[in-house]
Amino acid sequence: MKSYDVAILGAGPAGLSAAIYSARYGLDTIVISRDIGGSANLAHQIENYPGYLGSGMELMQKFFKQAENVGAEFLNDDLINIKKKAGCFEIVTTGRKICSKSIIIALGTQRRKLNISGEDKFLGKGVSYCATCDGNFFKNKTVAVIGGGNSACKAVLLLSGIAKQVYLIHRGEIEKCEMVYRNKIKEKNNIHILNNTIPLEIGGKNSVSELLVDRGGKNLPKEERIKLEGVFIEIGGLPVSDIAKMLKIKIDKEGYLVVNNEMKTSINGVFAAGDVIKSKLKQVVVAASQGATAAKSAYDYLQK
Amino acid sequence: MKSYDVAILGAGPAGLSAAIYSARYGLDTIVISRDIGGSANLAHQIENYPGYLGSGMELMQKFFKQAENVGAEFLNDDLINIKKKAGCFEIVTTGRKICSKSIIIALGTQRRKLNISGEDKFLGKGVSYCATCDGNFFKNKTVAVIGGGNSACKAVLLLSGIAKQVYLIHRGEIEKCEMVYRNKIKEKNNIHILNNTIPLEIGGKNSVSELLVDRGGKNLPKEERIKLEGVFIEIGGLPVSDIAKMLKIKIDKEGYLVVNNEMKTSINGVFAAGDVIKSKLKQVVVAASQGATAAKSAYDYLQK
Repeated sequence: MKSYDVAILGAGPAGLSAAIYSARYGLDTIVISRDIGGSANLAHQIENYPGYLGSGMELMQKFFKQAENVGAEFLNDDLINIKKKAGCFEIVTTGRKICSKSIIIALGTQRRKLNISGEDKFLGKGVSYCATCDGNFFKNKTVAVIGGGNSACKAVLLLSGIAKQVYLIHRGEIEKCEMVYRNKIKEKNNIHILNNTIPLEIGGKNSVSELLVDRGGKNLPKEERIKLEGVFIEIGGLPVSDIAKMLKIKIDKEGYLVVNNEMKTSINGVFAAGDVIKSKLKQVVVAASQGATAAKSAYDYLQK
Repeated sequence: MKSYDVAILGAGPAGLSAAIYSARYGLDTIVISRDIGGSANLAHQIENYPGYLGSGMELMQKFFKQAENVGAEFLNDDLINIKKKAGCFEIVTTGRKICSKSIIIALGTQRRKLNISGEDKFLGKGVSYCATCDGNFFKNKTVAVIGGGNSACKAVLLLSGIAKQVYLIHRGEIEKCEMVYRNKIKEKNNIHILNNTIPLEIGGKNSVSELLVDRGGKNLPKEERIKLEGVFIEIGGLPVSDIAKMLKIKIDKEGYLVVNNEMKTSINGVFAAGDVIKSKLKQVVVAASQGATAAKSAYDYLQK
């Protein structure tokens, strides 16, 4: 069974940055992930990673090549189990069993679901969690984006250039997205903002044909049917913390892994970075910084 | 007197990243700095800013242009005074007087001095604090680098390609620099490492001609004279915290500004990021992340 100094779980901005730093520290480093780039791949255009302008996927490929060039190994497997043994963490993947002296968890988030009727039934048939991936299927059609944060606003802007009409549907009064997106949204005449609106049901036969919403908010129900072909759900993510359960790492009530300033979890030798921990700002540069810090902490841990 | 939402003091990685984020949040943003790039400019080659490979100066120009493109204003002045007034901070520079509702301090560090005889006298005449800037003056000469951290190791490697002989002089047993640098140093046959060695005096007539050192360490003094033409002092930096004194911001015993996780200082409306605060890892990506977070905190502060 091959042994490593550091096993990094996940290959988004945090995991790849941790890999660059860990390999540069001279540590035997393996990154275990089914994909390269994580949710940053879904960013059509990144304008706020300092020093870079381009697609999320292209940026993630740069991170990846940099990590590979300094000697990080990549294993394209799913994780099955992880156990603390004497002297190492035993990791079982779909294809291998390895041993690592330390672990950096950078598994990010999985998309949060609305949990309304029709959501599962029409997945891939009009329901999508990724405007960048699926937007082009909705040329000249009518779509709705559900959500009020940056990812919803970015999705709306992207779709407004493809679809005929785009609804932005959210529960609250104020959009939580950045001013720069709000200003751009105002300039488009095919975006319709529906405040205080709660999605109730996604309807259709073989594919989505309508969205039932409550336009009166919680206090004054007023149902309305919107005719459309696509529903994009952009209501954020839930931290992927199954691993935390396997290792009995402390998590908070929202499911985020609890770390200190040095990215140490409650288990000695296990660190975490990126969207799997709670941060004031969910941005590529923040995740990359946390990944670098986690690698430094793993390095310090291994010197002892 | 012109009024801003955010005044950013300093234009290194933290200040520029804060400017990108602050301007993108739609805040009236001014960056006050004599230079663009700060100490990151001195990095000959940056290999560990994820997604980038190239010189520090080039990376900082990318940060700068990105900040300018999103609307941050730049003021190329020195700071003279800063005072908290009703409703705003009044900032006096060499050329202007402005008012800002919030402040982000990103002034970084100034080089730490050895405080030995000859250090001031021979500054620019063989004594340097920047191998990237002054290395080329020492072609085929003998030089020493004093220090044991990453900046010292990087300086030694850079100089080994220019000078004939390079001494790496440090007080301790173990170098604190990254494995990748230590391995490269081992491969060079014109680098001589002097452990447990304390520099005592820099000597010469019109320019540096020798360095007096104690090779025995503290317990067993053993003086030795090294004939050389250049002495590069790379022993880290001291946080620039004069501003903190003007605003009565809490600093720690080493002079670093004290902030919480959201980059808030002890004074309401004043935030700090980068080398002026204490971090586990002093890296461009960490400073950039802190700058982004400080901008978000300033934005949240201004919404109230």
